[in-house]
Amino acid sequence: MNKYFPKVPKIKYEGADSKNPFAFKHYNPRKKVLGKTMADHCRFAVCYWHTFKGLGGDPFGPGTMIRNYNQSDDPMAVAEMTMEAAFEFFTKLGVNFWCFHDRDIAPEADTLAETNRRLDKIVKLAKSLQQDTGIQLLWGTSNLFSHRRFMAGAATNPSPAVYAYAASQVKKAMEITKELGGKGYTFWGGREGYDTLLNTDLGREMDHLGRFLHMAVEYKKSIRFKGQFYIEPKPKEPTKHQYDCDAGNCHAFLQKYDLVDDFKLNIESNHGTLAGHTFQHELQYCVDNGILGSIDANRGDLMLGWDTDQFPTDIYETTLAMYILLQSGGFTTGGLNFDAKIRRQSIDPEDLFHAHIGAMDAFARGLLNAAKMFRSGKFEKAITKRYAGWETTLGKKIEKGKIGFAELEAYTHKNGEPKIQSGRQELMENMLNEYIA
Amino acid sequence: MNKYFPKVPKIKYEGADSKNPFAFKHYNPRKKVLGKTMADHCRFAVCYWHTFKGLGGDPFGPGTMIRNYNQSDDPMAVAEMTMEAAFEFFTKLGVNFWCFHDRDIAPEADTLAETNRRLDKIVKLAKSLQQDTGIQLLWGTSNLFSHRRFMAGAATNPSPAVYAYAASQVKKAMEITKELGGKGYTFWGGREGYDTLLNTDLGREMDHLGRFLHMAVEYKKSIRFKGQFYIEPKPKEPTKHQYDCDAGNCHAFLQKYDLVDDFKLNIESNHGTLAGHTFQHELQYCVDNGILGSIDANRGDLMLGWDTDQFPTDIYETTLAMYILLQSGGFTTGGLNFDAKIRRQSIDPEDLFHAHIGAMDAFARGLLNAAKMFRSGKFEKAITKRYAGWETTLGKKIEKGKIGFAELEAYTHKNGEPKIQSGRQELMENMLNEYIA
Amino acid sequence: MNKYFPKVPKIKYEGADSKNPFAFKHYNPRKKVLGKTMADHCRFAVCYWHTFKGLGGDPFGPGTMIRNYNQSDDPMAVAEMTMEAAFEFFTKLGVNFWCFHDRDIAPEADTLAETNRRLDKIVKLAKSLQQDTGIQLLWGTSNLFSHRRFMAGAATNPSPAVYAYAASQVKKAMEITKELGGKGYTFWGGREGYDTLLNTDLGREMDHLGRFLHMAVEYKKSIRFKGQFYIEPKPKEPTKHQYDCDAGNCHAFLQKYDLVDDFKLNIESNHGTLAGHTFQHELQYCVDNGILGSIDANRGDLMLGWDTDQFPTDIYETTLAMYILLQSGGFTTGGLNFDAKIRRQSIDPEDLFHAHIGAMDAFARGLLNAAKMFRSGKFEKAITKRYAGWETTLGKKIEKGKIGFAELEAYTHKNGEPKIQSGRQELMENMLNEYIA
Amino acid sequence: MNKYFPKVPKIKYEGADSKNPFAFKHYNPRKKVLGKTMADHCRFAVCYWHTFKGLGGDPFGPGTMIRNYNQSDDPMAVAEMTMEAAFEFFTKLGVNFWCFHDRDIAPEADTLAETNRRLDKIVKLAKSLQQDTGIQLLWGTSNLFSHRRFMAGAATNPSPAVYAYAASQVKKAMEITKELGGKGYTFWGGREGYDTLLNTDLGREMDHLGRFLHMAVEYKKSIRFKGQFYIEPKPKEPTKHQYDCDAGNCHAFLQKYDLVDDFKLNIESNHGTLAGHTFQHELQYCVDNGILGSIDANRGDLMLGWDTDQFPTDIYETTLAMYILLQSGGFTTGGLNFDAKIRRQSIDPEDLFHAHIGAMDAFARGLLNAAKMFRSGKFEKAITKRYAGWETTLGKKIEKGKIGFAELEAYTHKNGEPKIQSGRQELMENMLNEYIA
Repeated sequence: MNKYFPKVPKIKYEGADSKNPFAFKHYNPRKKVLGKTMADHCRFAVCYWHTFKGLGGDPFGPGTMIRNYNQSDDPMAVAEMTMEAAFEFFTKLGVNFWCFHDRDIAPEADTLAETNRRLDKIVKLAKSLQQDTGIQLLWGTSNLFSHRRFMAGAATNPSPAVYAYAASQVKKAMEITKELGGKGYTFWGGREGYDTLLNTDLGREMDHLGRFLHMAVEYKKSIRFKGQFYIEPKPKEPTKHQYDCDAGNCHAFLQKYDLVDDFKLNIESNHGTLAGHTFQHELQYCVDNGILGSIDANRGDLMLGWDTDQFPTDIYETTLAMYILLQSGGFTTGGLNFDAKIRRQSIDPEDLFHAHIGAMDAFARGLLNAAKMFRSGKFEKAITKRYAGWETTLGKKIEKGKIGFAELEAYTHKNGEPKIQSGRQELMENMLNEYIA
Repeated sequence: MNKYFPKVPKIKYEGADSKNPFAFKHYNPRKKVLGKTMADHCRFAVCYWHTFKGLGGDPFGPGTMIRNYNQSDDPMAVAEMTMEAAFEFFTKLGVNFWCFHDRDIAPEADTLAETNRRLDKIVKLAKSLQQDTGIQLLWGTSNLFSHRRFMAGAATNPSPAVYAYAASQVKKAMEITKELGGKGYTFWGGREGYDTLLNTDLGREMDHLGRFLHMAVEYKKSIRFKGQFYIEPKPKEPTKHQYDCDAGNCHAFLQKYDLVDDFKLNIESNHGTLAGHTFQHELQYCVDNGILGSIDANRGDLMLGWDTDQFPTDIYETTLAMYILLQSGGFTTGGLNFDAKIRRQSIDPEDLFHAHIGAMDAFARGLLNAAKMFRSGKFEKAITKRYAGWETTLGKKIEKGKIGFAELEAYTHKNGEPKIQSGRQELMENMLNEYIA
Repeated sequence: MNKYFPKVPKIKYEGADSKNPFAFKHYNPRKKVLGKTMADHCRFAVCYWHTFKGLGGDPFGPGTMIRNYNQSDDPMAVAEMTMEAAFEFFTKLGVNFWCFHDRDIAPEADTLAETNRRLDKIVKLAKSLQQDTGIQLLWGTSNLFSHRRFMAGAATNPSPAVYAYAASQVKKAMEITKELGGKGYTFWGGREGYDTLLNTDLGREMDHLGRFLHMAVEYKKSIRFKGQFYIEPKPKEPTKHQYDCDAGNCHAFLQKYDLVDDFKLNIESNHGTLAGHTFQHELQYCVDNGILGSIDANRGDLMLGWDTDQFPTDIYETTLAMYILLQSGGFTTGGLNFDAKIRRQSIDPEDLFHAHIGAMDAFARGLLNAAKMFRSGKFEKAITKRYAGWETTLGKKIEKGKIGFAELEAYTHKNGEPKIQSGRQELMENMLNEYIA
Repeated sequence: MNKYFPKVPKIKYEGADSKNPFAFKHYNPRKKVLGKTMADHCRFAVCYWHTFKGLGGDPFGPGTMIRNYNQSDDPMAVAEMTMEAAFEFFTKLGVNFWCFHDRDIAPEADTLAETNRRLDKIVKLAKSLQQDTGIQLLWGTSNLFSHRRFMAGAATNPSPAVYAYAASQVKKAMEITKELGGKGYTFWGGREGYDTLLNTDLGREMDHLGRFLHMAVEYKKSIRFKGQFYIEPKPKEPTKHQYDCDAGNCHAFLQKYDLVDDFKLNIESNHGTLAGHTFQHELQYCVDNGILGSIDANRGDLMLGWDTDQFPTDIYETTLAMYILLQSGGFTTGGLNFDAKIRRQSIDPEDLFHAHIGAMDAFARGLLNAAKMFRSGKFEKAITKRYAGWETTLGKKIEKGKIGFAELEAYTHKNGEPKIQSGRQELMENMLNEYIA
C-alpha cells in the first residue's frame, strides 16, 4: 500500500526530540498509561468526509486540492480509488478506526435502489480492506443534509415523503454499518431545525423527530445491530437553529421522548463552543448525566462564528478533555474522531498527514498530562476539601432528603452567618499550568 | 399620592396622534382585543429592583441618579419611602402588578431574625398599599446572589451552611409572597453555576439544586401557597456558566429531577439572546413543551455580550412575542414583567416614566399587530399548507406510530424522489411587514 | 422580454392596501420625497452574483435551485441566457442599476486572453441590453477570491505572480466597467488578510495592498475612467482576519497609504455587524469622515456568526440608514445595492421577486419615515439642545483651539461641579417609534 | 515592610520543580535571555485599581473581600494604609513598576482644589515609598469615567464644562505622573463613545477628542514631561460603542487629527478580543505601524462578552506575545501591566499573590519559549520562504513602485497560471507546539 501517498512513510513514534515532521513526538500507541495503552485510551478515528472528500471549497470559492485518487470521470472508479487511498492513509498514520457517511463512500445514483447497489459494492471493498488492515469502523452515519430533498430537514421535514426517504437512507446506513462491524451509529441532524419560525411548526417537528428515532431503535433491534446510537449536538449552521443545540437540549429531548436509554451523545468541541459552552462543559455535563458516548475531536476558532473544524492542537483543551475522560473511566464504544479539515491553503496530501500527526500528538500530550493530574490527586483533593461540608451530618441529611426548609431555617438561626472560603481559582489555574507540558 | 413624582400626572391613553410624552399612544387598558382587555392580555408588572433600587451604577462607576425617596441615613425609612414611591409610580403608570426580591424591599440586618422582622414590617406596608390601590403581586423571589455568602452559589454552594441559609431565605420569601397574594414565585439562580470547572463538582451541585427545589415544593404544599413556581433561565453573568442556561437545559433538569409538573419557566428576552436563541425561540419552545409561565419583558443589545436589560421598544419583537402568546391561549398566572433598567445617563425620575410608557406602548402595538395576524389566519394557513402532507395516509401513519423503517423504505422505492416546495421565507417576511404598524 | 420569468408581470406600485404579492406597496419610483423622486433617493441595484449565479449552495450541500437560463452544457450559452434573464428581471422589477464581478458574467477559460475575449463578448451583449432598457451599471468589480490561485489573497498574496494576475484582472474589469458606463468600481478584498499569523508578514502584505491600489488609481487616470473607487470593509470570512475589517480600519489604511482622496467606502450592513458595529455606526462614521460612497443593502442575523446576506426587511434599519443618508445629502455616485441572497429553501424564481420587492418596499418605508423625521426636526433639535454648551464662549474657544489645559482648570476652579443633564435615551427611542410606520 | 501581608514571604525563584505556591517556578528576574534580563524583557507592573481598590463587586453584588488596609472611616487614612500595603505587595512580589489612576490613590473631595491637595499628600507618600524601594511608575492616568459628571463622556461630553473638568483632572494627573517619574501616561476613554446614536453628534465629539489630545500634548511640552503618551483601545463597555475601538480605529483617529507622532498604543489583550481581534493581531498591527507602546497583560474569557480582566495564564498567548515583542526589539518606555483582577470568590489576600505569581510565571515561560523560537529562526525562515517571490525582479519592481497594471498584465499573459504553494498552517501549528513548554 504505497500508491496514493508515495512520499509519506509509515508514521512512527520517535520521541519528543525528533525533528522529523512525519513522526510522532508524543503518541506512542503501545505505551501504557494508567494500565492501558495510549491507543486504547484514545481510540483515534479518521473521518472520511473531510479527509478524503473535502477539497478546500468554502462559500467563496471551490476546492483547491488536487488528488491522485479522484482523477476519473467515472464516479465509481473515484469511489474505489478513494477507499483504497483512505486505507493506505489509515495504515500509514497508524489509527485503528474510521468513520463515514453513506454518501461519502459511494456516489448517489438516479434511484435509491441503484444508489444502494453502489453502496453495497463499496462496502464490500471497505470490508475487505478492513480485514486486510485490522482497521475498524468507529461509527457510520447517513448524510441527510446535502441533497436538495433535505433542504428543509430530514426527520423534521414538512413533507412525510422526505421523511420516508430519510428513513430509507438510515435503514440502509445502519445495515452497512452493521456489515462493517461498526461500534456505533451517529445521528447528526444537519438540517433538523429551522431557518425562520414564521414557516415552522416546531412542536410537530420535534414530535416527528422523536418518532423517527424510535423507529431507528426498533429497526436496530430487528436486525440485531449492537452498536451504540449517538446524537451529535450542534446549535446552528447550516440552519439558523438546530433542535439538538447542545448537550442539555439533547438531554431534554431524549427524556421527553423516552429515548434516554437508547442514545448517548457524540460531543464535538467546535459545536460546543458555537453553542456558547466550553468543550469541557459539554463533556462534564454528559459524564455527570451518564450520556457521554463519543467525541468529535476538533477545534473551533473562538473569534469566528462558524464551524471551522480545525485540527485540535491546544494542549490545554486536550489535557482537560482527557482528564474528564480518565475520571469517567474512558471510552467504551466511542473514540476520538478527527472531524476536522485542513485549511483551504493546505493543498498538499502531506498536509493531511501533518494535521493528523499534530492532533494525535496533541491528544497524546493531553493524555500524559491528564494522567499526571489524575495520579497526583491534587485536583480531586482540592474539590473534596471544598465540598467537605457535605460529609457532615447537615450535608448528609440534605443529600439524603431527610431534612426540609423548616429544619434548615432552624439551623441557620442557630448557627448564624456561614463561614465562606476562597474559591482559589487563580491557584487552581497555576496548578493546571504545572501539568501543561 | 403625589409626593414622590410631583411633576408627573396620571398617565392616560390619548391615542396615536398625541404629542404628550406622558401619555399612552397605543396602550388603552380597557380596549378589548379578541375578547379580552389589553390589560388582561398584557398583565404588565413593574420590577422593584431596577426601577426603585437601581441608580445607574455599572462596573465602571457608581450610581448617577438622585431620588427624593432615598435621602435618609435610616435604611428602614428609605425602605418605607421607597415603597410609597413605588405604589405612587404603579398607580400613575396604571399597571396592575409588581414583582420584588426580598432584599429589594427591606434591608438586611445583622441577623436573619432581625432581617425577617424588617421584612415583615415592610410587607405590612406593601399589603396595605396593595389594598388601597388594587395593585397585585405578580411574583416574589429571594435575592440569593448579592451577599458575599452566596458568592459560590446558594442551592449549589460547596457549603451546606450556605445552602441552609438560602433555604431559610426562600422559606421566608415564599411566606411573604403568599401573604401579599403573589400569583407566582420565581427562582433565578443568579450564581447557581460555576466560574471554573477546576474547582467544581458539577454533578453534585445539580443534585443539590434538584433536592432544594423539591424542598421548596414540599414547603409550598405545607403552607398551602397556591402560586405558580417559575425557573428563569440565563446562560451566564454573573457566573461563567449557569446551570439553568436556557429553556431546553431547564427542561432537561426539571425532567431529570422529576420537577416538571411543579415548575414553569419565566422567559426573559435578554437571557434568551445571551444564550444564542431568539426571544421567539425560547417562547415557542416553552409553549410547545407546556412550560411557559411568565415573561421578563426587556431587550438586549445584540452587539453587546452582557445583560443590558433595556426597555423593550422593538415592535417586531413585541409583535412576535404576543403572536406566540395569543396562539398559546395567553397568560394564566404570568404576565409581562419589565425586568429592565433605564440607561445610566437617564437620571431624571421622568425617565422612569418615559421608559415604561414606551415599553407598554410597544407591547400594545405588538398585541394589536399580533391580533391582526391571528385574525387574518394567513400565517397559520401558510403553515398548514406547508405541512399538508402530514394529513395524508402516510403522514398519519407515521404520526400514530403505525409504520416503521421497512415500510418507509418500500414507500420510497415505489414513489421515488419526493417533490419539494419553496420555504417562501422572503414572502413570509414581507407578510410580517404588512402587520408591523 | 418575457422569456425567463413568464409567470411574473412587471411589478407596479399599488399602494399599502394591495394584497398582490407581486406589487410594491410602498415603493413608488416617481413619487417625490423632499424634492427628489424615490428612485433617485434609493438608486436600487440588483447584484448579479447572488441573484443570477447563486443557486442555494452552502457548506453543507450544493445548490437547490433549478433555473431555465442555465440548462446548457455550453458555458457561454449559459452566460448569454443568464444576461438576458437578468435584464428581463431588472426591467420587470423596475430597478435602474445593476452590479457585477467579471467572473459572474462570463466563465473563466484556459488562458487569461481567452477569458478576456469571453468577457468582451458578454459585455457587448450587456451594453446592448443596457441601451435597450436604460438600466445602468452602478459598479463593477473583479472576483479575486474564488479561484484557487487567490487562495492566499490577491494583492496581498505571498507570490508576486498571483499579484500580477490580480492586477491583470482588475485592469480588464476596470476597462469593461468603463465600457458599460459604470458609476463606480469596488474593491472587496475577499481573501486580503490571513488565516494564521504564523505564516504571514502582515506589514509587508499591507504595503503591497497600498501599492496595488495606487497602481489602480494610476491606471484609472490613464484610461480616463471617471467612476468612483470604493473599498468594501469586512472583518472576516472567508479569511480569519481581513485587513479592511471595518470603516475605521479602512480609513487608517487609506490615510497611511495616501489614498484617502481616491477612495470612498461601500458599506455593507452585514459586514458592519460581523465587525461588531451597527449598520448605522458604519454609515455615520463614513459620513462624518467624508468617505461614504455606496451601500450594500442587506441584513445579517445577529444570532449567527457568518455573513447571511439576507434581504433587508427591518424597517428600523432602513429608516435609520435613510435618515443618515438624508442628513448627508444623499447618494452621488453610489446607491443601494442588494448584495443579498434568497434562502436555500426559496427555490422558485418567484422567490427572487418576493425578496427584491420586500427589500425595496422596506427601504421605501424607511425613506418615508426618515423624511418625516427629517422634516419634523425633532431629532436634530434634541441634539442641538444637548450640545448647546458648545455655542457658549467656553465651547467656541475650545472648538477654535484658543484655550488650553491651564485655562480650563481655572474655569473649573471658578465654576465648580458641572451641571449634568439626562441623556433621554428612552424618550428618544419612544420618539423613534412614533416614526416607524 | 511586613504589616499588611504578614503570612506571605518575599517571593523567590525556586525553579520548575518547586512545590511552593509562593515561589516563582519560571520567572528568574536576573536570568539573561537573548542578552537581557527577564526583568528587563518583561517590565512587569502591578495595577493599583484592581489589586488594591477592587474588592470583588460585580453588577450582581457588592465586594466580597475584606482587607486590613481599608478598615477606617477616614478615607485619607485608608488611602495611606493602602499605599503602604501596595508597596509592601510590590516589594514582596518583586515587580519593578506600578500604574495608577488619580482617583485610585486619593479619594475625591468636595472641590477640585481639595481633591488635588489630597492627591498631593498621597503622591508625597508614594514618592517616598518609591525612593525607599526602587520601584518605579510605569504610567499614570486619570479616572474620567466613574464620577457621574462623566456619565456622557469626558473629552467627548456634550457639555464643555465637563470637558473642562476632565482637562483639569488630566492636567493634574500629568503633573503628578511627572512628579513620580512616570515613564508614560495613558488615555483610556472609558466613556468616550455613545450609548445611542439618536442623541449623539459623533463627528463633533471626535473633533473635541482630537482637540483635547492636542491640548494634552501642548501641556506636556509646557511642563517638560518626557513620558510617552498612550491611547488604550477598547470597543465597548461601559458604553455601547467607544471611539477608540481597536488599534486600527485609533490609528485612523491619530492620523486624521495629526497626533500619530505623539501617541503610541497601550494594547490590552481582553480589549482586543472584545473587538473581535486576537491579542497577537493587535500587537502585530501596532508593531507593523510603529505604534506599539505598552501592554495591559490580562486575559478574557472568549465565551463571555464582557471584559473579564483575568490574570494571564495561557502559555500560548504569552509565548506569541513575547515572540512578537522580541521581533520588534522589545519595550522602550512600556511594560507588561497586569490590568487584571482576581475572581470574586478569591477573597484572601494570598489570592492576590497566587494570581500575580501565576501570571509572571506564565510570561516567563512565554519569554523562554519565544526566545527559543527566535533563536531557532524556523518561523522566520518559513515566512521568508513563503514570500521568496518578492526577492525576484518582478517582486522588487512592484515593491519599488516601478511597474504598473499594463506591465503586470503583460507578465501574466506571458507567464500564464501562477504556481501556488501550500500555506502549511497545520505544520506551523505543530511547530509552535514544539515550543510550548
